[in-house]
Amino acid sequence: MSEKVTALDLAATDLSDATKSYFAKCEEKLGLVPNVLKAYAFDDRKLRAFTDMYNELMLGESGLSKLEREMIAVAVSSVNHCYYCLTAHGAAVRQLSNDPQLGEQMVMNYRAAELSPKQKAMLDFAVKLTERPDTIEEHDRQGLRDAGFSERDIWDIAATASFFNMSNRVAAAVDMRPNVEYHAMAR
Amino acid sequence: MSEKVTALDLAATDLSDATKSYFAKCEEKLGLVPNVLKAYAFDDRKLRAFTDMYNELMLGESGLSKLEREMIAVAVSSVNHCYYCLTAHGAAVRQLSNDPQLGEQMVMNYRAAELSPKQKAMLDFAVKLTERPDTIEEHDRQGLRDAGFSERDIWDIAATASFFNMSNRVAAAVDMRPNVEYHAMAR
Amino acid sequence: MSEKVTALDLAATDLSDATKSYFAKCEEKLGLVPNVLKAYAFDDRKLRAFTDMYNELMLGESGLSKLEREMIAVAVSSVNHCYYCLTAHGAAVRQLSNDPQLGEQMVMNYRAAELSPKQKAMLDFAVKLTERPDTIEEHDRQGLRDAGFSERDIWDIAATASFFNMSNRVAAAVDMRPNVEYHAMAR
Amino acid sequence: MSEKVTALDLAATDLSDATKSYFAKCEEKLGLVPNVLKAYAFDDRKLRAFTDMYNELMLGESGLSKLEREMIAVAVSSVNHCYYCLTAHGAAVRQLSNDPQLGEQMVMNYRAAELSPKQKAMLDFAVKLTERPDTIEEHDRQGLRDAGFSERDIWDIAATASFFNMSNRVAAAVDMRPNVEYHAMAR
Amino acid sequence: MSEKVTALDLAATDLSDATKSYFAKCEEKLGLVPNVLKAYAFDDRKLRAFTDMYNELMLGESGLSKLEREMIAVAVSSVNHCYYCLTAHGAAVRQLSNDPQLGEQMVMNYRAAELSPKQKAMLDFAVKLTERPDTIEEHDRQGLRDAGFSERDIWDIAATASFFNMSNRVAAAVDMRPNVEYHAMAR
Amino acid sequence: MSEKVTALDLAATDLSDATKSYFAKCEEKLGLVPNVLKAYAFDDRKLRAFTDMYNELMLGESGLSKLEREMIAVAVSSVNHCYYCLTAHGAAVRQLSNDPQLGEQMVMNYRAAELSPKQKAMLDFAVKLTERPDTIEEHDRQGLRDAGFSERDIWDIAATASFFNMSNRVAAAVDMRPNVEYHAMAR
Repeated sequence: MSEKVTALDLAATDLSDATKSYFAKCEEKLGLVPNVLKAYAFDDRKLRAFTDMYNELMLGESGLSKLEREMIAVAVSSVNHCYYCLTAHGAAVRQLSNDPQLGEQMVMNYRAAELSPKQKAMLDFAVKLTERPDTIEEHDRQGLRDAGFSERDIWDIAATASFFNMSNRVAAAVDMRPNVEYHAMAR
Repeated sequence: MSEKVTALDLAATDLSDATKSYFAKCEEKLGLVPNVLKAYAFDDRKLRAFTDMYNELMLGESGLSKLEREMIAVAVSSVNHCYYCLTAHGAAVRQLSNDPQLGEQMVMNYRAAELSPKQKAMLDFAVKLTERPDTIEEHDRQGLRDAGFSERDIWDIAATASFFNMSNRVAAAVDMRPNVEYHAMAR
Repeated sequence: MSEKVTALDLAATDLSDATKSYFAKCEEKLGLVPNVLKAYAFDDRKLRAFTDMYNELMLGESGLSKLEREMIAVAVSSVNHCYYCLTAHGAAVRQLSNDPQLGEQMVMNYRAAELSPKQKAMLDFAVKLTERPDTIEEHDRQGLRDAGFSERDIWDIAATASFFNMSNRVAAAVDMRPNVEYHAMAR
Repeated sequence: MSEKVTALDLAATDLSDATKSYFAKCEEKLGLVPNVLKAYAFDDRKLRAFTDMYNELMLGESGLSKLEREMIAVAVSSVNHCYYCLTAHGAAVRQLSNDPQLGEQMVMNYRAAELSPKQKAMLDFAVKLTERPDTIEEHDRQGLRDAGFSERDIWDIAATASFFNMSNRVAAAVDMRPNVEYHAMAR
Repeated sequence: MSEKVTALDLAATDLSDATKSYFAKCEEKLGLVPNVLKAYAFDDRKLRAFTDMYNELMLGESGLSKLEREMIAVAVSSVNHCYYCLTAHGAAVRQLSNDPQLGEQMVMNYRAAELSPKQKAMLDFAVKLTERPDTIEEHDRQGLRDAGFSERDIWDIAATASFFNMSNRVAAAVDMRPNVEYHAMAR
Repeated sequence: MSEKVTALDLAATDLSDATKSYFAKCEEKLGLVPNVLKAYAFDDRKLRAFTDMYNELMLGESGLSKLEREMIAVAVSSVNHCYYCLTAHGAAVRQLSNDPQLGEQMVMNYRAAELSPKQKAMLDFAVKLTERPDTIEEHDRQGLRDAGFSERDIWDIAATASFFNMSNRVAAAVDMRPNVEYHAMAR
């Protein structure tokens, strides 16, 4: 953990036991501790608030598959040109889909992917919400219903797209650096 | 709680005891339950993840005053034209500052306010991060340091501006309606 | 009139009798002399040209109600983030409608208001004309006709939206300060 | 006057004597009645309000030459891609400057013209005020002062740029057609 | 060839025989050597690559008339505000159409021209491809097919619009100056 | 060559001998025929015009290294979200630099890369030329000179950035599909 993961001089000096144990679990499960967690580790409450929201959103129960949530994450991050999120979540799309091209398409331009009309509607909404949130109207929500999404699904699409509009900006603001391991994963 | 707070049909049928007790505390302290909490109440874990992050960020310890954090919230929400956040957090700026004009300036155009150079730098960064996160560079962070902000302050500015880029989009996506009480507060 | 109403050093030293009498009438009718008039008062002909156009447009005969004209004023000023016009005309919407929320919605995001399809079409046109005047085409005008507007109404919508694109820019260019009394009106 | 000058069905049936006389003066002085005047002629008060403001602004006393005011008109209209104003005022720049290239440069991109630093500052301000009025700050006004402009000059630059942001939009909204004679003038 | 045609100090000292002969042919056919060719003349291979692509595209066989290709050139250059291309190709539209107004409309705003639905679809596609290439989708191509264009026509529309997105940027980057003769042509 | 490389039905039926031989050379040198060449192969003259310009620009003599030219290609294509060019030229950056991260940074956000001030100035210029070509002025060129670039280098930066603004749009317009082999190269 000696490497610098952000441009801010906020390195955690002493990790709490809770954080040490959480990081150990990451190492075990993922083979690495995602740098975003190290970035938040200077404050236990901030780290926990972030991980609680992230885990509920991306790993919790949802009508959206984990892959679909990662696709939203990457399509949003492409609009915002977020190096950290495109790297980390681009790898996740490649892994979860077993389709390296799909990961690249989400990074580069989701419109290049061959998607079902339902998934296309999902990403169109996520990207419109990213680019012009002020212009979302009832017909946009209705478009998702017409594509087959439930009320709860719409919430999850909105919450996921919105979360990455937050994460993209935290990462941009502090120049968060992704773990180098992501680049070679699932190519 | 019969009124509809979002355009989605996700009304909580039975609030958990924890949520009931949290809402009672809101009523007691604030005189109302903010509609954003009712919007999240259909799922206890989502509600808790949101309130934990929100409370840590906006009410926890920070080199930024609570007023400054609310100013960031409103300046960001003005770029995104978020009706919910401008209403609720505009009221908070008016209350915390005892300066109704300041609240209106944050809602309408933060550049109209007479701010210290330090606060001006803070909002300039927050708004640039909102409009073009992809263009943030080291000189932007250095500008905040030069204005007198610590590394931790920069994190808090970034985290607050980023959080409202999330909240603005959740609110826009589901057409979240602010409590009507906010409009008349602290005018 | 000692307060400075713009950032330019152009204070009128001697008001003409015509201007004095006009300002007295404003005091009597409105309880204040709108600062925009003081800003123009350094030159009688400019003041008169402005008030003639303004009064004809906003107070003259039209198929649009005075409230509708004020709604256009505020929706346009929201796009341009004009502190002066949002303050002064936001108050006018609150007063004319007896609906403080409507005033706030026009200031923050007109899409948050519950509008008739006709009024929605009116504001959609005004905002498109503000954001991308180069892209207005016959189908945009036809949309207004289909919503029930006459040829003359379309002119008035266009003229009102266009006028505030002028006023917003004069106000921004000279940092025009609204009368403080507006903030508390009709809340 | 049988030709249609806008897309709206608002042709003046009977011109008032005042308007007839004004149009006769235009014919005499300019060799034509500018179509913008015919467009407003359906209502005498609207026509007079427009011509009063226009004449004061473009022909009245000012520290800016008539050519400079026309250069602002055209540079602003270029941003807004206004066919009417680019045609009519492009011709005016060519005539007043005896420099057809200057007229074309204002229409196409004012940055291509070889301008004095003072005139460059003037047009930079006018174009910024057109594109992003919300971002004008004191340093923008100071830049004009530093370039040699007086407080009153700054007002006139602002008023002219703002006026054409209005006129461009009226013209776009109603599809105003310029007199064909402009095209060949002063080539 | 002593006049400077770009802001770069790259004047060709010795033209090759091939270039001399090519320029002589231009003089003969067009009455001038277009400055863009002089700009490229510092390097024979660059000049030839440019002219080969240009001639194939603009003068070669195509389902699009030469006028239509020039209309695309100018409509694209209007979005990019390219002084060189608007001047040179605006003249070409005027010449090929014998309609000076059409040339001006392409320069100022192609939406002001009275076009057949087919030509309108062609320019709408070219301008969308210029402004937001990332958002082109199958329905955009289908729109061209529905308007009557063949697969090969679509390629040619795309190639022409794209070529001028290149040329506009080369011209902007080096401040390329059009031959003064263009201004007066075909007025 | 049976796979479809664009959305247009323009498959070359019979390749000329010249094209066959050119494609064979590609196979030998690169291990594949880049799909962009197959896309152009329906017309020999178009293919040759494209390859002549491409080869001169990207492979010819220049003060810019081949890697630097590829970096420009990818940074420009990132702004335009061009799936084809990001895939093909992203691979080229990875290969030429032996630095997979650098390739990803160019694809995602060139500002995330640790570049020399000279290379940073080069990409800043290329990206500004892509986003707002109309705003390039002499100080932008001077910035390149100050960073150490020669007049000829500036031409090459401009020409490369401009070329990919063309190629990005041709690819977007016809939905050009990159060879799948690129994805795994040099990871």
